Amino acid sequence: MVSRVATTIGVDLGGTKILTAAVVDGEVVATAKRSTPRTGTPADVLDQVAAAIDKLDVEGPDIHGRITRIGIGAPGPARPGGTTVGAAPNLPGWDAPVDVGAALQERFGAVDVLVGNDVNVAALAESRRGAGRDVDDLLAVFVGTGVGGGLVLDGRLRNGVSGVAGEIGHLVVVPGGEPCGCGGRGHVESYAGRAGMERIARRRHEGGEPSALTELAGDGRMKSSIVQAALERGDPLAVDLVADAARVVGLAIASVVLVVDVGTVAVGGGLAERLGLPFLDAITDSCREALPWPSAVPSIVPTRLGDDAGALGAALLFEE
Amino acid sequence: MVSRVATTIGVDLGGTKILTAAVVDGEVVATAKRSTPRTGTPADVLDQVAAAIDKLDVEGPDIHGRITRIGIGAPGPARPGGTTVGAAPNLPGWDAPVDVGAALQERFGAVDVLVGNDVNVAALAESRRGAGRDVDDLLAVFVGTGVGGGLVLDGRLRNGVSGVAGEIGHLVVVPGGEPCGCGGRGHVESYAGRAGMERIARRRHEGGEPSALTELAGDGRMKSSIVQAALERGDPLAVDLVADAARVVGLAIASVVLVVDVGTVAVGGGLAERLGLPFLDAITDSCREALPWPSAVPSIVPTRLGDDAGALGAALLFEE
Repeated sequence: MVSRVATTIGVDLGGTKILTAAVVDGEVVATAKRSTPRTGTPADVLDQVAAAIDKLDVEGPDIHGRITRIGIGAPGPARPGGTTVGAAPNLPGWDAPVDVGAALQERFGAVDVLVGNDVNVAALAESRRGAGRDVDDLLAVFVGTGVGGGLVLDGRLRNGVSGVAGEIGHLVVVPGGEPCGCGGRGHVESYAGRAGMERIARRRHEGGEPSALTELAGDGRMKSSIVQAALERGDPLAVDLVADAARVVGLAIASVVLVVDVGTVAVGGGLAERLGLPFLDAITDSCREALPWPSAVPSIVPTRLGDDAGALGAALLFEE
Repeated sequence: MVSRVATTIGVDLGGTKILTAAVVDGEVVATAKRSTPRTGTPADVLDQVAAAIDKLDVEGPDIHGRITRIGIGAPGPARPGGTTVGAAPNLPGWDAPVDVGAALQERFGAVDVLVGNDVNVAALAESRRGAGRDVDDLLAVFVGTGVGGGLVLDGRLRNGVSGVAGEIGHLVVVPGGEPCGCGGRGHVESYAGRAGMERIARRRHEGGEPSALTELAGDGRMKSSIVQAALERGDPLAVDLVADAARVVGLAIASVVLVVDVGTVAVGGGLAERLGLPFLDAITDSCREALPWPSAVPSIVPTRLGDDAGALGAALLFEE
């Protein structure tokens, strides 16, 4: 129960879970969670979004009537200021644009709705309330299953003309290198995402290289915790893959500096949080090596908001 | 002779020449040129700047008394809004910061002075009056002796926290690759600048590879005109080097798109102007190949202002 009346809701609509937050004066006052349906239609997904909003434990008997604004961070293309989310491969049946605004107004009445890209809104939250709260410019990098990024310049989220600003997971770091999930080759995400690392580990395992990574994972997903455990055992393949991941993330950050010259970079996401400060230090070393000017090396720090970033950032879309 | 009274002067202070422009209502109404001294002190350089301003053919007997503002684009570090140019290795004796503002006020009285980085101010001019005049965002790339870039976002020149924004010549495109003039390796400028191409051509020549490039250049500088002539003869090494140059510039532009997602890129500079549209087309092909989303491929067009860009952009600093 919270003491202030919550009227703005932020929703982090992910492929596996839906996180909602009631936000008052830019602060999260309550959160709730539901699983994202694995099958069905966009309507089923939006029913779960509504259920996760209803679940928020805020003062008074009925949150429905008091909501005036809902911001959504979605894993698909979202035009700034709009209410529609384009095709989202990680959401069931979401293979064409869906007007999330209209769908939520059916369920919650005359609310204002804004949508944003999930990674971009998380970067916005880190900029306003997290690792970037004291600076005007922030690059936020999320190293999880893949590698995402969001860029805030002069206090404003940069979307770009086609909406791909901050997509540093697809920067080419090794021309013709390892395949990337997008179909390209040699991208940051080919080496630094959990999925890319698993792809390389399994191929090297099949090629006869023994590793605690494949031992621990068996037929299951090679989770961040497994990467960490193998690293702690000093497993050579794990050491190698994590060093490569840090190297390419550092290189990507150097590229961002040479384009827009930000002074602060926040690094988060499941894998980065697991690997902690040694991973950030290795990223900083790689970035320093790639930049001709020592004074241009940015401060590379951990993100501060953890899982709340997406939902809070979605609510902050109304302050953009 | 021009019919309007010129009060704002732009100066393009280069390593070999000084170009000045009288600018009225954002248009160049007169230009003049002097050689940059090869020896001497910053005071000698600034004497030549003053002479190049005096040389401007504008209405009335004495331009001195009518100048109110002088903008300088300089080949050294220049803080936005300031009047000081840091150490500039291409200017004689300029090995410490020089207060250009104070020096010009001694010569021209109570004028306002602003300094900017030479490449950045040229990008500003292309944005306001050249290839980017109809769009809010522009990346300008200059492929000459080296490779420089300047970035205008939402109509404003991006400098960045340490002043290196737009320095895309030093993006790493081949980790551990060819040396760059800055001491790094595998940078865009290692492959795409006239100097980098000459370095590679001479080494391959010494390794036994015959080429029209070294034949034509002899012991002299391998000028852009020589690269063009060798290319027109179908010289295999020239074809190879120019293809590599286009490839890395296209890759660099793709990286800029993945960071800030601009829709328009202007490419100019001595070498690019010589090589013309086929070079731009090859750059576009490389950029398209490097981007996962076809809709994000920017329009890559020639710069429009030629040699005037620097001086005009320096004058436009007063409109920033």
